[in-house]
Amino acid sequence: MSTTAKPSGVVTLLTDFGLREAYVGTMKGVLWSRARALRAVVDLTHDVPPQDVSAATFHLRHAWSWFPAGTVHVAVVDPGVGTDRAILVARHEGHLFVAPDNGLLGPILRDGDAVHRLDAAASVRASATFHGRDVFAPAAARLVDGASLDDLGDALEPGGWEQGSASRARVEAGVIHARVVHVDHFGNLVLDVPGEALGADPSAWSAEIAGVRVPFAKTYGSVAGGTLLALVDSYGSVEIAESGGSAAGRLAVGRGAQATIRRNA
Amino acid sequence: MSTTAKPSGVVTLLTDFGLREAYVGTMKGVLWSRARALRAVVDLTHDVPPQDVSAATFHLRHAWSWFPAGTVHVAVVDPGVGTDRAILVARHEGHLFVAPDNGLLGPILRDGDAVHRLDAAASVRASATFHGRDVFAPAAARLVDGASLDDLGDALEPGGWEQGSASRARVEAGVIHARVVHVDHFGNLVLDVPGEALGADPSAWSAEIAGVRVPFAKTYGSVAGGTLLALVDSYGSVEIAESGGSAAGRLAVGRGAQATIRRNA
Amino acid sequence: MSTTAKPSGVVTLLTDFGLREAYVGTMKGVLWSRARALRAVVDLTHDVPPQDVSAATFHLRHAWSWFPAGTVHVAVVDPGVGTDRAILVARHEGHLFVAPDNGLLGPILRDGDAVHRLDAAASVRASATFHGRDVFAPAAARLVDGASLDDLGDALEPGGWEQGSASRARVEAGVIHARVVHVDHFGNLVLDVPGEALGADPSAWSAEIAGVRVPFAKTYGSVAGGTLLALVDSYGSVEIAESGGSAAGRLAVGRGAQATIRRNA
Repeated sequence: MSTTAKPSGVVTLLTDFGLREAYVGTMKGVLWSRARALRAVVDLTHDVPPQDVSAATFHLRHAWSWFPAGTVHVAVVDPGVGTDRAILVARHEGHLFVAPDNGLLGPILRDGDAVHRLDAAASVRASATFHGRDVFAPAAARLVDGASLDDLGDALEPGGWEQGSASRARVEAGVIHARVVHVDHFGNLVLDVPGEALGADPSAWSAEIAGVRVPFAKTYGSVAGGTLLALVDSYGSVEIAESGGSAAGRLAVGRGAQATIRRNA
Repeated sequence: MSTTAKPSGVVTLLTDFGLREAYVGTMKGVLWSRARALRAVVDLTHDVPPQDVSAATFHLRHAWSWFPAGTVHVAVVDPGVGTDRAILVARHEGHLFVAPDNGLLGPILRDGDAVHRLDAAASVRASATFHGRDVFAPAAARLVDGASLDDLGDALEPGGWEQGSASRARVEAGVIHARVVHVDHFGNLVLDVPGEALGADPSAWSAEIAGVRVPFAKTYGSVAGGTLLALVDSYGSVEIAESGGSAAGRLAVGRGAQATIRRNA
Repeated sequence: MSTTAKPSGVVTLLTDFGLREAYVGTMKGVLWSRARALRAVVDLTHDVPPQDVSAATFHLRHAWSWFPAGTVHVAVVDPGVGTDRAILVARHEGHLFVAPDNGLLGPILRDGDAVHRLDAAASVRASATFHGRDVFAPAAARLVDGASLDDLGDALEPGGWEQGSASRARVEAGVIHARVVHVDHFGNLVLDVPGEALGADPSAWSAEIAGVRVPFAKTYGSVAGGTLLALVDSYGSVEIAESGGSAAGRLAVGRGAQATIRRNA
């Protein structure tokens, strides 16, 4: 059974539409037109690289829990728009989600969650190409106004949706084999290693990436400017950063790059 | 006579101010300071190329109708700021508009619409250069709180405002001579051809641009990645796209480029 | 004594986080989760150059007064995050401010203002690195809901916070020795000279920058396109601009560049 929560009146939007067009604004127009109980629409980000579903998962996975229970999270990174891919409406820990069934929600949903397939008839004037406006936003508006998942479409069996993939570090003979899963605005390199993997004292470990050994520190500000450091970041993940600079630039590495983390001798 | 609608409490903003400055935020400060009935301010886009009035028209024309009736749409792309150009306040199909009289609203307004010239005395502490904050936002706030167009300034006769121009394809001997009127975030090329011009079956036509023949398809996802296609897009316009890529980059063309659309032999 | 104002329910955000990540969205999630009286969150800008405290001051200083009294302004440009730098909560002319004690607020606050040091225990699950989400947003939420500065931490003596610095032009023998303190989105060069310094008639003066003499004009639109002009801008500051173009590009100068302003002979 999944938790039910009163709608919070808040909708979040996560897309790869960018902000140079009025696409996102138009989706908000539909929300304000249809959702009577709407209080706010919050942008997570619209700068997901075009059609990069796993980047969308990364952002949504780290953001949703900071919103009030009953928030509706709409994620539209949708290479399959116009094909017969399904659209999911789901409930997870009291939050509601609307997204294409392309693996975007896979790493967030759990088997006990209520996951339904959106009935396409829920949309009104549907174009073939802009489902964000014509299908996703109207579905979100109905959830804001208290519609149940059953109202929106049939329930799926556990495992009846795309699982997607979230990179996960391998631990072998005490060495953590990691990858960069995200490069942020500052050039910080986020690894697929949860901070807990390092126990209570991260400073007992060192990272190695692009042939460079990087010691752990507590925060960006605790080392001199221009110094490379590894730390447990605000995502709760292990990250490699340069204090006051860009680790990605300094090391010339990006998403997918390998790193290893070893206990100090 | 034009339709009257109760204000919706929603204001949209469309400018060429960008988001690197606090200009847009400051306009919102004025709105939240003055409009008691304000519920939300929605950004359409602030990345209109500097002083590109026809790009502003393009975005506003495709976005306004998706908002609730009674929404106030404020568009500030205003090369003439500080000159004696007029500012228009207008009502069209139950929506309210505030914009400089430079052709921006021309392709949206119809002769039956109520169009007034904003009385400059409606502003309070007006700088010579930031009318978005000092003149447009205060006028919008008054409309949100129920002021009539008459309260804001004198009515204009039909045709008493700048008409602007919206590019329109020519049809000659069964061939549609079109132009690219917009290049979107994905590099899709939007033409000045309404989808209806192709009748019920767009696949009976082909496009030609930059010497390349491009067949029609229903959606981006219905062809293989890397394939050029023409389609009727979410604007309701004919568009040339590359599935999973950028048609603008692939074909090295931009706004103003010519295209022809012909019925298949 | 400082003015008290009822909270307006409006929060502004100013950061160097950019919009490519969901960091700003996550801060909004915390605000919507915790502040019952919240009406709106307004972005000033999130494109402050990384860790550029004086740019943050520039934007905040020119924006805050346009919001309703009782607005909470949150500014997070914070090179010292994770060190023992203090966080300030302050009241100035009926507005509330939350920012790191690194000089960001210095040029805004006056000695009569109430300035308190945020008690770190006000945060709930604090990471070492994302105080925007874990410390600043929760403090702002409490202010929105009517908490007093005393509720959030102990008062500081006048001068007990970092003063920061705001560049100020020198006047010597009737010549104003100025600097560019900001380059805006359009390439306009904002100087550290308040418009009042020129008296009632700015056209009695001329500017000189990068070896070029620039006459004053009233507005961008009052000179031909491509012409350099000096004017009193929407910040109330003296600015050097190119009509319809970028003065920064034309003159190849940026922040810190010197300019002189002299009375015409």
